[in-house]
Parts: sequence; structure tokens; C-alpha cells
Amino acid sequence: TILKKYTDYPKQAKKVFGDNKYKIELIEEFTKEGKELTTYKAGKYLDLCRGGHINNPSKELKHFKLLSLAGAYWRGDEKNKMLTRIYGTCFPTQKELDTNLNMRQEAKKRDHRVLGKQLDIFSDEVGAGLPLWLPKGTILRQELEKWAIKTEKAWGYEHVSTPHITKENLYKISGHLPYFKDDLYSPIEIEGENYYLKPMNCPHTHMIYKSRKRSYRELPIRYAEYGQVYRFERSGTLHGLMRVRGFDTNDAHIYVQPENAVKEFISVFQLHEYYYKTLGIKDWKVVLGVRGKEDLKSKYHGNDKMWKEAEKLSKEALDKAGVKYEVEEGGAAHYGPKADIYVKSVIGKEYAIGTDQLDLYMPERFKLTYTDKDGKEKMPYIIHRAPLGSHERMIGFLLEHFAGAFPPWLAPVQVKVIPISAKNMTYAEVVLKIVAGLDLRVKLDNRDETLPAKIRDAQLDKIPYMLIVGDKEQNRQEVSLRLRTEKDLGRMNIDEFLTIAKEKIESKSLNLL
Amino acid sequence: TILKKYTDYPKQAKKVFGDNKYKIELIEEFTKEGKELTTYKAGKYLDLCRGGHINNPSKELKHFKLLSLAGAYWRGDEKNKMLTRIYGTCFPTQKELDTNLNMRQEAKKRDHRVLGKQLDIFSDEVGAGLPLWLPKGTILRQELEKWAIKTEKAWGYEHVSTPHITKENLYKISGHLPYFKDDLYSPIEIEGENYYLKPMNCPHTHMIYKSRKRSYRELPIRYAEYGQVYRFERSGTLHGLMRVRGFDTNDAHIYVQPENAVKEFISVFQLHEYYYKTLGIKDWKVVLGVRGKEDLKSKYHGNDKMWKEAEKLSKEALDKAGVKYEVEEGGAAHYGPKADIYVKSVIGKEYAIGTDQLDLYMPERFKLTYTDKDGKEKMPYIIHRAPLGSHERMIGFLLEHFAGAFPPWLAPVQVKVIPISAKNMTYAEVVLKIVAGLDLRVKLDNRDETLPAKIRDAQLDKIPYMLIVGDKEQNRQEVSLRLRTEKDLGRMNIDEFLTIAKEKIESKSLNLL
Repeated sequence: TILKKYTDYPKQAKKVFGDNKYKIELIEEFTKEGKELTTYKAGKYLDLCRGGHINNPSKELKHFKLLSLAGAYWRGDEKNKMLTRIYGTCFPTQKELDTNLNMRQEAKKRDHRVLGKQLDIFSDEVGAGLPLWLPKGTILRQELEKWAIKTEKAWGYEHVSTPHITKENLYKISGHLPYFKDDLYSPIEIEGENYYLKPMNCPHTHMIYKSRKRSYRELPIRYAEYGQVYRFERSGTLHGLMRVRGFDTNDAHIYVQPENAVKEFISVFQLHEYYYKTLGIKDWKVVLGVRGKEDLKSKYHGNDKMWKEAEKLSKEALDKAGVKYEVEEGGAAHYGPKADIYVKSVIGKEYAIGTDQLDLYMPERFKLTYTDKDGKEKMPYIIHRAPLGSHERMIGFLLEHFAGAFPPWLAPVQVKVIPISAKNMTYAEVVLKIVAGLDLRVKLDNRDETLPAKIRDAQLDKIPYMLIVGDKEQNRQEVSLRLRTEKDLGRMNIDEFLTIAKEKIESKSLNLL
Repeated sequence: TILKKYTDYPKQAKKVFGDNKYKIELIEEFTKEGKELTTYKAGKYLDLCRGGHINNPSKELKHFKLLSLAGAYWRGDEKNKMLTRIYGTCFPTQKELDTNLNMRQEAKKRDHRVLGKQLDIFSDEVGAGLPLWLPKGTILRQELEKWAIKTEKAWGYEHVSTPHITKENLYKISGHLPYFKDDLYSPIEIEGENYYLKPMNCPHTHMIYKSRKRSYRELPIRYAEYGQVYRFERSGTLHGLMRVRGFDTNDAHIYVQPENAVKEFISVFQLHEYYYKTLGIKDWKVVLGVRGKEDLKSKYHGNDKMWKEAEKLSKEALDKAGVKYEVEEGGAAHYGPKADIYVKSVIGKEYAIGTDQLDLYMPERFKLTYTDKDGKEKMPYIIHRAPLGSHERMIGFLLEHFAGAFPPWLAPVQVKVIPISAKNMTYAEVVLKIVAGLDLRVKLDNRDETLPAKIRDAQLDKIPYMLIVGDKEQNRQEVSLRLRTEKDLGRMNIDEFLTIAKEKIESKSLNLL
């Protein structure tokens, strides 16, 4: 527990750690750079440590658990030797530790990579971090997109569609070249000009705004696009759908008169609230990244006045919208403050799902204007927003949030018709046609399997509704309704079932009944 | 009219054409290559000519018209000097000439580049051949895509979604590298591996088929995707939406048991028929490209048996489907026969809209299999199809076909509410809300303009329905319905109008009433 400062390092330190070449490497580096070298002691265990965590580990850290071992390259560099890293966690009380361990256990079962494979959602065959969406995964994308488009139309958005490559000059205007270069893939040369895979949709949408003169009467103009972007990620950091190299964002850019910016930004947060509530996400928050106090000139574009205005308006909108938020100093983008959105799944696992921004900088770079009431050309503000994040991360999140048991409107297969025996097949096919005729996603289990096996497989596939048809059902022109929760509702009229299912689907209910 | 062969060229020929350096260049080249040099004479006009067209131009070519002048690089090479090319056309009868000249006149008015700009459909700001779709153009894409997805679902297709870049190896398997290299953009290097912008969706879809074992019970598997592909085109050949560098194809790949291939291919042609009939395309045909008789080994992959089978089955399907088709020797792709689809617009202008293929080669390259009834692993055949072509070419075609006056279901704005004077504005807003509430695309003309000006602008925008509301309409809670065809239907109940419009939209009718 004594933090010891070496006054005569490296001599003293080398004496203590002389048999460990990694410690020696650090000691020599610290010496060279003139940094302070300290050790930390707990019981008989002594190690190099920056220190300052707690006074007495064995006394204070009672509720802990060692979790796992993993290989880790020395200093995170894959050219170095691989060492073993021990993971553990610790909480103030046993109860908190238990809750966390349960969450970890549950999270493991809900791992979207496991569920994604088991439920035929995506595959990874054409390149690392470039998921191929299988039919069931594509239904999730289609349903989310249909919902977004319909909602956006109702909220006054229009849609645009832009290509995936763009000439270099656009990224020079936006300043992403050279400031964002590490995130861009290498350029494609076409007839002597460089093109880049787009890392964001913004410049494209700005060019649409710019394609003709705008009047204050038209504002706010809200352009939305589910737009696929590509950003470089090291292969070591890729993770299922959560960290990929190409992703399809629920993007929109709103061009608004400065005096209406707060009102419009509030409306954006209300849209978040609507989406998350529908998806059963009860807990979400914003981390508002603002400028740090250091290196203002080298880290951030734009002038002081612009930054103060953008930060003030962002906070005002968050306050008025009643959104839970924290402020992170130094967390801003190079061109403005950014509001990172975090959502919590039902088991309490938190993910950053997207970023919103009130942007006063790009309108200047792209020389965007509108003619105001007084006839003068003025600059609009831009709001960037993506409440549903990207398909990749949102679907990864929802797989874990719902443990693959999607609500009826999202479920890739909504209904499974299960004949009890081969002689009920003809009637099962009639039921299939009736259900399909109402645009429900329905499959027939025509395998030569036992009833329990068919039910078990439908449950493993997390299909909300099973319609079981045997002789009794056939004779009465009925179905027996069973849920994936194992609840058995017995026989009913097909129309009775369809009324239930249609209502749950159309209202995007989280319940099956 | 005398075709003269020079026996002692270049001497004789040079004497005649000595003042023309272009002719001299040709004469010298012909001499060098030992080619026969001939001239052709009409009246007093003598020129180098391969000849053989007709005997007496001034007598036989009565019904002709010189159409235009254009600059053309000498021998098509932009490094050479630009000369002037004279365009003309000629028909056996004056009537045929007149019909053609009228079609040309009409086609000029319908040019999709002009209409595309006038109707705010697309813009071209991020790179040549990379259209940005404006909100109205995006509605056309969305409507076509919704229709395709719904239709495909009803016809037994499932949907997939694939990324736009892919590692090199996939194109080596498909043989597109090196055989299709000129159409590919330069590679993007990611961590030492080459990736390409995808020039087609096939390999991706094949990898989805390959992502697990398949049984004969599942076949045919039909995977559809509106998939954006990128192919190199020289900037000089780009043309509005008709020839672009990136386009979004109405793609699908069908994996079928060989014995069901013809039946399935017939069904594909029936789907074409359904789409084209709905769009009012009365005339369409297939040009079936088969192998030529020369260079079989160097031009085409695969073996003789495979080619004979593919050509035989393709013809059988076309015959049985009753599709109008021609056979073009030497028009096949390197890996199989291809059926190019040509559609004719209402004014008779013809465009190649897409290509279908019965493919026996790629299943072998990708080692695709299914387990047949007898337990043996067999190879499926693949049908490639894209009845709606690409969004780019189809929307370009439809703009010209409909002269921008889209049928109600496709019209970007379906209804315009036009108040006669400012005091009818409140009532106009009520009408707007009622119409919008039924999911019709409706706008309000709230400008301070005269009624004729408002009507004229709605007509220029080719909006199908105008609802004109003045005092009389307001007092009776009615609307006056006017069509873009200038037809005035007088006052009616709003519901009466909505019934008409909804029916026309839902049935995808080509008529307004």
C-alpha cells in the first residue's frame, strides 16, 4: 500500500525488477523520457504502478470476481509477444456484484454474434467487417427502414439517395481531408481524379441543398437517407455487427434558420424518445461532447463565437427536451459539439448507437445560404441526426435486447403453421394461404417430424405464433394457437387469431397478446 | 456510282486525294496493311468508300433528311483533331420518314435529362455518372422498389442485402478477374488485401447460397436485391441516367434444379410481362446472345456440352413463354448465353433495359451444390434476372415514356391543393390534412399568385390532380377537381375525389379517372 517514488531510478527499480524484461523496458523508457517512476504494494505484491486507486486492496475490495484470461500483445502492438491478461470486476456490495455477474451471464447468452448465426441473420463471407444480410436479417432491415421512412414522412422529412463514391474535392471542402484521412479507405482513381468511398453522407446531402437557391419559406428542409458509409477499422477491432467496416446509417440533415434551431433540435430528441419507447428501450442518455480547455487552436476548427453558440444551443435543446445528459469536456468533433446517444438494453448493457450534432461550421465550408424574409442571403444551421443509428449496430443491439425474440412486427417469421400429422397437410396449406393473404410472414412446417420436435424448433427460431392443426382443428376449421413463450391458448377461429396478430403487428406492440 | 478498285495504289489514289491529309493517312495505312482500296462515286462526288450500299444514291434515296452536325474526333480518338460529322436519315417512303422525324421531335421534348432537371428528379454534383437523387427522384425509386419487393414476395422470392466492396478473391473465383478487369475500378487496399467496388451482385449472392448446406426441398431459392453496382465508363460515353458509373439493379438470382430450369425461366418472363404491362410498355423483345462460330476456345469459358444445354433451355423457355425474340450469334457473355431485354416507349424509342441469363457455369466456379432426393450432391443451375433493369435506366426510360407525366401511383406529387384567394387558405389547409391523412403525396400552393399561374405551374410539374378551393367549395365543404390534362370535373365531395384517386393509385392504373 505504499506508493514509492524512486529518487535514484533506474538503478533501484532495476534491482527490484531485474528478472523481468518488460518492466526493464518500461523503466528504461521512463528514464529516457524523464518521467516519474513509482511502485505500488499490496501485501507482499509489489509492482510498477501509477497508483492512487485505493489504500488497502485486500481490505477494501471484498466483492470481486476474476472473470477470464485472454491473450494480449505487449503494449497493444501485434508485432510484440503475446502475454496473458487477467480480467476481473469489483463492486462496493455483493448485491451489485451479483447483478453484474448475472447481466454478464445473460449477455453471453444474448451475444448477437451467436444469435445472428443461430437465427440466420447475417454471415461474413466477402470480407472482414462486411456483413452479408441473409433473408431474415434483410427483413429486419426492411422493417426498420419502412418504419423510419413512414415516421420521417410524418415528421416532415423528405428522402434523398446518394452514391457511395465521391470525388476528392468534396472531402477537401468538408475538411475531412486531411483531418479524417485515417478513417478513409485508399482512393480509387478514375480518369486521373481521386474518388473515395464515402465515410459519411453529409457532403452529398449538402450538395443537394446547394443544387438550387433556397428561400426561408422552405426551411426547415429535412433530408433523410438510409445511407451506407465505409470507414476504416483495424481487423483486430472488428466485432460482429457492432464494429464493422461498412454500415447503413439512419441519417438525416436538417437545414434550419438559426432562430428555429433549438425548436428543431428538441423535435429531434422527441423523435428519439418515440423510437426508443416503441422498441422497449426505457433507458437512454446523451453525452454532449464539448470543447476541452486545451489546444483550442490545433484541435478545433471555427471561431470562439461559433463554438459558444453551438454549445449553448445544444444544451438549451437538451434541457428543454428533458433528455438525460452528461457533458464531456474535450469530447467534441473537430467542427462542433456532438451529442452521442447511448441506449441500454433490457439487461442493462449499454451501447453508443449514434451521434446527433448541431453544426454551425459546415454551412460555412459549403457556403450554404437561404434568402431570408428581408431579402438578405443568410446561412442556415445544420442538424445531423441518426436516432436509429446504423442497421448494423441497431440490429446487433436489438438481437441482444430481445434475445432474438423480436416483437411480432419485427419477427422475420411471424407465424408457423404446424400440422400434427401428414393427413392434416392439405388443411395446413389452406391455413398458410389465408394467413399469407393478409401479408403476414408465415411458414409451413412440412417436415416429417414429431409434433414436439416441430414445436421445439419453432421456439428455437423464436417465432411469435404457432398455429397447430390436427383433426379437431380441421373438422371445425379452426387453429390451436401456441406462443413461443410456451403459452397454449387452445382452439380458436382463424379470424380470431388474425385479429390479434394484425393488431399487435400494426401497433408495433412488444406483446404477443 | 462506279466502285473503282485501285490496282496501282497508293499512287493513283494519292493523285486524286492529294490535298486531304486524312485520306492520305488512310491510303498509307491500307497500303501498309495490304488492304484493298476502293472509291465510290455519286454524281460528281468521289470518295474513298468500302461501297456496296446502293447503286444510285440520287435516284434511290428520295426520302431523306439531314439532321444535325456534330464535332467528332478523327478516328474516334480524342487526341486527334476534331472534324465535323453530318448526321442524316433515310427511309423507303415519305410516310416512314415523317413518322421517324416526328418521333425524333417528340423524343427531344421528352429527353430525360431535360425533364429530370425540370421536374427536380436528379442532379450531378459529386462526380460524373454518379447521380444524386433529389426528393422527387427518390420517391420514384422508393415506389419502384416497394412494388418490386411486394411483387417478388408474392412470386416466392426472398431478399438479401450485400456490401458494395468485396475482397479480390471472389472475382477471381467468378473469373471477372482478369476477364472483366476493364469494367472494374482500381482496387482499394485494406491491410494488405485488395478490395473492389462490386461490378455485379452475383458473387455476393452465391456466397449467401453457399453459407450453409442446401436441400432439393428448398429449391428453387430466389434471392432478390436492389443492389448498387459500379462499372467503369469513359466520361465521354456517360449520358444522363442512361449511361452512368454507378447504378442500382433490380437483381435476383434463382438457384434451381436443372429439371425445373425451363419452368422457372418461363416464370421470369411472365414477371417481365406483368411489370411492362403495368407500365404501359406494349412492345418489348429479347435478343438472345449465343456463341459465335469462331474463337470458341478463347472467347468462351466452359465446355461444349454446357453451352449447348444452356442455349437449348434458354430457347425452349422463350418459345414456351411466347416472348418475341431474336437470336444474335456471337452475342453471348463469356460464361453463357444472355437474354438482353429491349423495351419500347410509347413514342417507339427503344432501350436495352437489362439482361437475364440461364447460367450453368458459375455454379461450377463457386462449387454450389444441393442434396437431391437420392442423397447425392448435385449442382443447381442459376437464373440471373433484372426485369426492372436499374433504377437509373428505368427511371430515365419512364421519364421519356410518360413525358414526365407519371401515372398517379408513381407521381412524386399526386395532389396539389390550390386556394383561389388568401381567404380560402384555412380551408385549403384542412383539405391538405384530409388528403395527407390518407397517405397521398399532397402539396399546398400557398404562394401569392393568380389562379391561372398556380394551375399552370401544377401542370408544368405534371401533378395528376389539382383540388381548387374557393368560396363556393369552402361553403359546401367540397373541392373542384382539375386534371393535368386540363380536364375540369367541377365541384365534388372530398371523399368522392379520394375514392377515385385511391383506386387509381392502388391499382397502379395508367389513367387519372
